[in-house]
Amino acid sequence: MADRHTNGRILLALTGWQSEIWIDELGKAAPDRAVTLEPEGEADPTIDYAVVWKQRPGLLSNLPNLKAIFSLGAGVDHIFADTSLPDVPIVRVVSPDLTTRMSEYVVWQVLDHHRRGPLYRAQQADRVWYEHREQTAASALTVGIMGLGELGRDAAAKLRVLGFQLSGWSRTEKQVDGVACHAGETGLGPFLASADIVVVLLPLTPDTRGILNHDLFKRMTRRGPLGAPVLINAGRGGLQSEADILSALDEGLLSAVTLDVFEQEPLAAESRLWSHPKVTLTPHAAAASVPSSLIAPIVKQMDALERGEALMHLVDRKAGY
Amino acid sequence: MADRHTNGRILLALTGWQSEIWIDELGKAAPDRAVTLEPEGEADPTIDYAVVWKQRPGLLSNLPNLKAIFSLGAGVDHIFADTSLPDVPIVRVVSPDLTTRMSEYVVWQVLDHHRRGPLYRAQQADRVWYEHREQTAASALTVGIMGLGELGRDAAAKLRVLGFQLSGWSRTEKQVDGVACHAGETGLGPFLASADIVVVLLPLTPDTRGILNHDLFKRMTRRGPLGAPVLINAGRGGLQSEADILSALDEGLLSAVTLDVFEQEPLAAESRLWSHPKVTLTPHAAAASVPSSLIAPIVKQMDALERGEALMHLVDRKAGY
Repeated sequence: MADRHTNGRILLALTGWQSEIWIDELGKAAPDRAVTLEPEGEADPTIDYAVVWKQRPGLLSNLPNLKAIFSLGAGVDHIFADTSLPDVPIVRVVSPDLTTRMSEYVVWQVLDHHRRGPLYRAQQADRVWYEHREQTAASALTVGIMGLGELGRDAAAKLRVLGFQLSGWSRTEKQVDGVACHAGETGLGPFLASADIVVVLLPLTPDTRGILNHDLFKRMTRRGPLGAPVLINAGRGGLQSEADILSALDEGLLSAVTLDVFEQEPLAAESRLWSHPKVTLTPHAAAASVPSSLIAPIVKQMDALERGEALMHLVDRKAGY
Repeated sequence: MADRHTNGRILLALTGWQSEIWIDELGKAAPDRAVTLEPEGEADPTIDYAVVWKQRPGLLSNLPNLKAIFSLGAGVDHIFADTSLPDVPIVRVVSPDLTTRMSEYVVWQVLDHHRRGPLYRAQQADRVWYEHREQTAASALTVGIMGLGELGRDAAAKLRVLGFQLSGWSRTEKQVDGVACHAGETGLGPFLASADIVVVLLPLTPDTRGILNHDLFKRMTRRGPLGAPVLINAGRGGLQSEADILSALDEGLLSAVTLDVFEQEPLAAESRLWSHPKVTLTPHAAAASVPSSLIAPIVKQMDALERGEALMHLVDRKAGY
């Protein structure tokens, strides 16, 4: 039998994820491509593409024919943790499926705070029947979104349908329909002062690491119907100082938080976050990377590249995302 | 001073609600109309309109000049509890504000079940880090909406934006964009078999009283990614048998329920619903009737009627809603 793997060869490099299902999906989406889990020998010239989630540092450094690195997560900080990256294009995954899941999470948690989920659940546990009749309209609340990439813009559009006011912040200037956009360091103050609920969907870069700290919480000065602002971080744990979040909650700078990501994951069993009454947490589950929906757009880009077309959704190495 | 109340006079008839804020709002929206809380004498000819929430039975029976009854709730069963109603038009309240609040509640609770809110909260309480990676896409779930009036159609449109599949059921045939519509007794079976999550926004009428019973739950035969279907009742408590809901949960016919309304309100402290692990309950708080948003459309209709225009949003007495 002739080799049916006639097209560019793929290295699948995962840490912490099972590889079987990804190999299956690659086999289905790209039957003409060979997939390997490890390079062969010192410098493997047979590998054309790397598809990665937290690849082992150094793994990609000696692949002379590598043409592109494809991330299996929306963020790419897991790739840059490797300081010996070869100089090839890095492609972020943009999948309507992943975006939809993240927006679901954001809408779910915004509504849970807006509609007093924690309060009504506590009342249920105590068998207390009490309707809080001062029910705020969504239109009286501003949800501020930090990070206006694919994820932030989609979440904004869906929150807007529900009637919330929207503001947004990004590193560079952006325009988003129905969103009061702020940018850069000068825009951060007005943005932070605008929001009843701050949703964080920023990439983790040297510039954003630790940005969710006590100084920033002090600048969240709005005191609207919810009281102090609510923080929802569904971006990356490295953006936040958990010690500062806890002290901001205890000082009343924040009225509640939802965290899907943590400085160290899994979150240590002894963290005060688990049992803090104003904290909702989920185990990095906001938007699962589902093989069947992520592999097809990646293979499509490999095919396009081989037809001579340009890659889309390229990462800006200098910006780090 | 000449009487500044030159236009039709209003009887405000509330049970269980404070009247002050409603009187304030009527004064602001209709400074040219007098408002009273009680008819004067045996037959009061000075009253033109009744604005009511659970009026005292018989209160409206002897008002010879009464021109219309305006409901302060989306449902009108509270009006029909009075068997001596005069033969004048009954007007339901249709307010974008009320509709928005109800859709928020529906979206919030659909997402809470879809995104495994109860499970992740239980994990948090136990300090368990475990991501359930078989994360179902919204597009793999069908939300079935019973009742396709203003509320049902708005909830459907907002759930559709989030990617859910939708089916619907109503007494009479309806067509709603993006919703697989079923109607009447013959449509009920296919509807019930279609849904992973059944959202109930039906009016309470002699036909619908007790419709959410064991027989109906047995016909909810779909076993999708959530397992047995989820029931969300934000309509009226009289639609449901709470004993049957509890047995359906215990038998596995339903995997979880959210209830905002109950056969008797407040729900008795000894009800098993409070502490059942598969029950989320809220104290008839899905959509508050907010005076500032409900009075304006009512006064607008009074003004229109006096200009000779027809009333809108009339209740069909025979259908009971």
